[in-house]
Amino acid sequence: MGSSNTVRKLQVVSPVPADIDIANSVQPLHISEIAQELNLSPNHYDLYGKYKAKVLLSVLDEVKGGGDGYYVVVGGITPTPLGEGKSTTTVGLCQALGAFLDKKVVTCLRQPSQGPTFGIKGGAAGGGYSQVIPMDEFNLHLTGDIHAITAANNLLAAAIDTRVFHESTQSDRALLNRLCPPNKEGKRSFNDIMFRRLKKLGISKTKPEDLTPQEVKKFARLDIDSDSITWRRVMDVNDRFLRKITIGQGPEEKGMVRETGFDISVASEIMAVLALTTSLADMRERLGNMVIGNSKAGEPITADDLGVGGALTVLMKDAINPTLMQTLEGTPVLVHAGPFANIAHGNSSVVADKIALKLVGPGGFVVTEAGFGADIGTEKFMNIKCRYSGLTPQCAVIVATIRALKMHGGGPEVVAGKPLDRAYLTENVALVEAGCVNLARHISNTKAYGVNVVVAINMFSTDSQAELNAVRTAAISAGAFDAVICTHHAHGGKGAVDLGIAVQKACENVSQPLKFLYPLDISIKEKIEAIATSYGASGVEYSEQAEKQIEMYSKQGFSTLPICMAKTQYSFSHIPSEKGAPSGFVLPIRDVRASIGAGFIYPLVGTMSTMPGLPTRPCFYDIDIDTTTGKVIGLS
Amino acid sequence: MGSSNTVRKLQVVSPVPADIDIANSVQPLHISEIAQELNLSPNHYDLYGKYKAKVLLSVLDEVKGGGDGYYVVVGGITPTPLGEGKSTTTVGLCQALGAFLDKKVVTCLRQPSQGPTFGIKGGAAGGGYSQVIPMDEFNLHLTGDIHAITAANNLLAAAIDTRVFHESTQSDRALLNRLCPPNKEGKRSFNDIMFRRLKKLGISKTKPEDLTPQEVKKFARLDIDSDSITWRRVMDVNDRFLRKITIGQGPEEKGMVRETGFDISVASEIMAVLALTTSLADMRERLGNMVIGNSKAGEPITADDLGVGGALTVLMKDAINPTLMQTLEGTPVLVHAGPFANIAHGNSSVVADKIALKLVGPGGFVVTEAGFGADIGTEKFMNIKCRYSGLTPQCAVIVATIRALKMHGGGPEVVAGKPLDRAYLTENVALVEAGCVNLARHISNTKAYGVNVVVAINMFSTDSQAELNAVRTAAISAGAFDAVICTHHAHGGKGAVDLGIAVQKACENVSQPLKFLYPLDISIKEKIEAIATSYGASGVEYSEQAEKQIEMYSKQGFSTLPICMAKTQYSFSHIPSEKGAPSGFVLPIRDVRASIGAGFIYPLVGTMSTMPGLPTRPCFYDIDIDTTTGKVIGLS
Repeated sequence: MGSSNTVRKLQVVSPVPADIDIANSVQPLHISEIAQELNLSPNHYDLYGKYKAKVLLSVLDEVKGGGDGYYVVVGGITPTPLGEGKSTTTVGLCQALGAFLDKKVVTCLRQPSQGPTFGIKGGAAGGGYSQVIPMDEFNLHLTGDIHAITAANNLLAAAIDTRVFHESTQSDRALLNRLCPPNKEGKRSFNDIMFRRLKKLGISKTKPEDLTPQEVKKFARLDIDSDSITWRRVMDVNDRFLRKITIGQGPEEKGMVRETGFDISVASEIMAVLALTTSLADMRERLGNMVIGNSKAGEPITADDLGVGGALTVLMKDAINPTLMQTLEGTPVLVHAGPFANIAHGNSSVVADKIALKLVGPGGFVVTEAGFGADIGTEKFMNIKCRYSGLTPQCAVIVATIRALKMHGGGPEVVAGKPLDRAYLTENVALVEAGCVNLARHISNTKAYGVNVVVAINMFSTDSQAELNAVRTAAISAGAFDAVICTHHAHGGKGAVDLGIAVQKACENVSQPLKFLYPLDISIKEKIEAIATSYGASGVEYSEQAEKQIEMYSKQGFSTLPICMAKTQYSFSHIPSEKGAPSGFVLPIRDVRASIGAGFIYPLVGTMSTMPGLPTRPCFYDIDIDTTTGKVIGLS
Repeated sequence: MGSSNTVRKLQVVSPVPADIDIANSVQPLHISEIAQELNLSPNHYDLYGKYKAKVLLSVLDEVKGGGDGYYVVVGGITPTPLGEGKSTTTVGLCQALGAFLDKKVVTCLRQPSQGPTFGIKGGAAGGGYSQVIPMDEFNLHLTGDIHAITAANNLLAAAIDTRVFHESTQSDRALLNRLCPPNKEGKRSFNDIMFRRLKKLGISKTKPEDLTPQEVKKFARLDIDSDSITWRRVMDVNDRFLRKITIGQGPEEKGMVRETGFDISVASEIMAVLALTTSLADMRERLGNMVIGNSKAGEPITADDLGVGGALTVLMKDAINPTLMQTLEGTPVLVHAGPFANIAHGNSSVVADKIALKLVGPGGFVVTEAGFGADIGTEKFMNIKCRYSGLTPQCAVIVATIRALKMHGGGPEVVAGKPLDRAYLTENVALVEAGCVNLARHISNTKAYGVNVVVAINMFSTDSQAELNAVRTAAISAGAFDAVICTHHAHGGKGAVDLGIAVQKACENVSQPLKFLYPLDISIKEKIEAIATSYGASGVEYSEQAEKQIEMYSKQGFSTLPICMAKTQYSFSHIPSEKGAPSGFVLPIRDVRASIGAGFIYPLVGTMSTMPGLPTRPCFYDIDIDTTTGKVIGLS
């Protein structure tokens, strides 16, 4: 896009100012200008204010014939709790490709969760001179997708408990009569969603009055086993006191209390459906097929059995359209789906990537981010997301920092909110070299998929040349296609030009087809073990509960789904403090759940919290609005 | 607006098709065309798709000099559970004024809650040929205001429990150190929101290290009394199992369990703040001043004490802008704030009304809806909303139906979802006449505010002329300025032309100033008793808990606030089955709470549920999407 009208030259300042100050210092272009550069006409998108637009899925039909651009996934080494700048590198790389290397490029990012934004971590728009803007709009509400997920998730949750409640007080016939009320002429009928259930039950009758008492019972009584309910409520807030709760304690609920809990919204199966779906019709089926638990007879009960799959789709109908934004240097960004690759799959959406690949076309680049270390984000990108999308990446970027490599080499613990130890601020080549075992394993694991691996060394001002060289050497010897030092945080796209060139070469020189880590037609346990082996584990240990669930899901016919491990992001193993490249450990599978609508089985590796908490002094202490200008202040 | 370019002539069909079919049969205008008719330029609003726009509050500064239009509030008689068409009449009246009577007009409606939309009641866009379109966008998400309220409400809730938790494990000094972490130079400091608390505590020191141990304790330890916490979590879903819950049962929460519950989002104090605020700066103060409970010493604890008032404002910064939509006949609508005048104040927002009054200007009309019967919606409109806005209505419309009047006259119970009794479908003038006592009391109560009252008889096809005449006669003799039969459901604006003419005359012939039902400077109890008397009560009975709360709020200096009664909408009294115009009853006040940020005291009259439930067959059974066209089906 050398001829692009939207590229904006940055005036960089040193030392680098606060993220929000950089973001506020640049006047974003009206998003219709960004859209126009992508050859999108006004009927291809809906504006949401001046700087955001939802790109309509219908664009896919129009660009069907065209070829795809190169497809680049950005993962990382095992991170410190501070993060190693993966989003920042993703944005910086795209600014380099678009604003300095004359390439058509689209960045595909995930919508941040408001939990961390107001909690510990802050926002996720990138940082320094590599950001998505307006960063406050990116970090807050965006175009409402996560709110839609929360609403849909919780409507289903309410439907479950209320159904159990109503079934407990009504006869089979009364249930049928309530479900199929008479019309003005006094006739009862099934509606569309009921025919889905009738079909599943093998009942071909079309009138309620024709059902036998046995069939009435089968149809009208879901007979949900309350202990089997895996569907939890969600909220996009770090509310630790909702992790485990007892519901139904009001007098009208007649003692039907039950223990359950809330997860953070991005961990909802509906987020996974949004990320993996390919069309409105596909989303309708996936949402209807979500399994919330079992009947007392052990049959899986779905959202459609509860009559709510259509309503969930209606709630999600706008969320399926990705949101167009821009980087500081005026290159386009599609924001879609959500983070948390530890407890979810944490990749941006299939539809955003598909639209982007067509919009950039052959020779262009789509750079998509996968959450956390390559052991979880990139692994899920390959084995789940690419499997469902049919898309083939050419290059995987692995982001590394000297800071994280020193930690893996044996440096002291890094804690968010506490000052960094001196070891991280002064030269120590040996520590860096020792830590490269972590990088090396991520490289070889990622290379095994058949893509070229480029290591992006996200440079900090305290890094020494000798340290940086050590990483380069280790990366190349571990099989990386290239390893490049980047300064996009301090310099914007200009600081990632070398990375851009390396990525381009990597994409143009792919010699192998895409290979998955495991085939789908082996058993659930064999799949889990294949992934565990890639972590360095010597074996897998299943709890009694995990065994029971695996047996049940296999019996229910769900064993051909891919696997989405819920595992700590802080180690290849299940123990966050095991840095570097641990091996020989036995991976404990505490429980196994299933996201049948999204399309994967998810084993819980050890104890994983699905609802973060707030610290004593959360980020929100600094966040306020300048009521004169209307500008947000204190957002990081 | 006879010269208006946006007015659209309807082709009406008989019998009246389903609401969604009528809504889908009309192609809405691009919302920028509606905006242009109101003399709004593109920098006055943000588009949200093609048919919705948020009108920016900054418009108020530009139109400050101009005069206001006439201000009309629409209330109703005590309704049946089916609703008597108050929104429909509001829309129909505006279609008449705008499309047939050449008036500049803006309709101000409240955003519906998604709870009822998917539960029993369905949407709230009006009905028949008097609707806001696109009705699916109106009923779903809209521009995200209620989602923003949910997010803000629950961030505050999480902040409360987490603060209690962290205070329980840390010394005063450790809390201070966490709250004021050292910067890179090792210096600790207070931030802006902390100075608010220091000021409230009367501490004028500016550095953390200067505080005495006593001051450290006062500042850093909120010492919240868990039993006093009135702040509940919210969700915009009918989830009855969340009415009463126990939280904090996870092992990490160390046994700090607590009983609490969820309300429906529109009952959040933040919704009330949104409705009553007048500017961004005013909203910042109100949100920061919200009281969540007391310290163990009995001092009120606010959102700003918790450090979160600024963050709440940031979450609400777009929600403060009302949403522009259109009626079926192309007249403009501003949608803002929320419903549920029984448990909230249930009026649309002050800012929407203020903007609208300037946009229509002198001679134009702003028609704003107040929830449920005039005993609650209109009463709160007058005594709370107009008190805060300083605006003066000229006319109050009271919507009545033959159906509801027959119920008040002694007709059999009306139950949502069950067929209507024959009494409601055949002529019975005596029943109607008997029921007019309800209408008469609403008229005299409303007239007492100094406005002219116009009764809108929302006609159904089963109503007889004799029945309709009986209502007209009763209304006039009860002091109504006029009483008009309307057929806007069947005919659109054309069916409400007579109503429009009557309203215009009523506005032009106001002879009295606005009078409130009670002054602010009397005691809380005297104010409650003034309202109870207007209900027909002979006295008020306070529970021990209510007495305690009134005493506490009076001591805390909150006794000068207006009163927002939480009372059933189904009777003037606290007993839903007491129809007509009950009198001589003693009104029981079960509890008294306070919305200090929003600015009112709210007594709970008897048992009021703040979280609706779902029936056996909720509306969602019929709601789905046509995946080929993308259109929503089955929404009612």
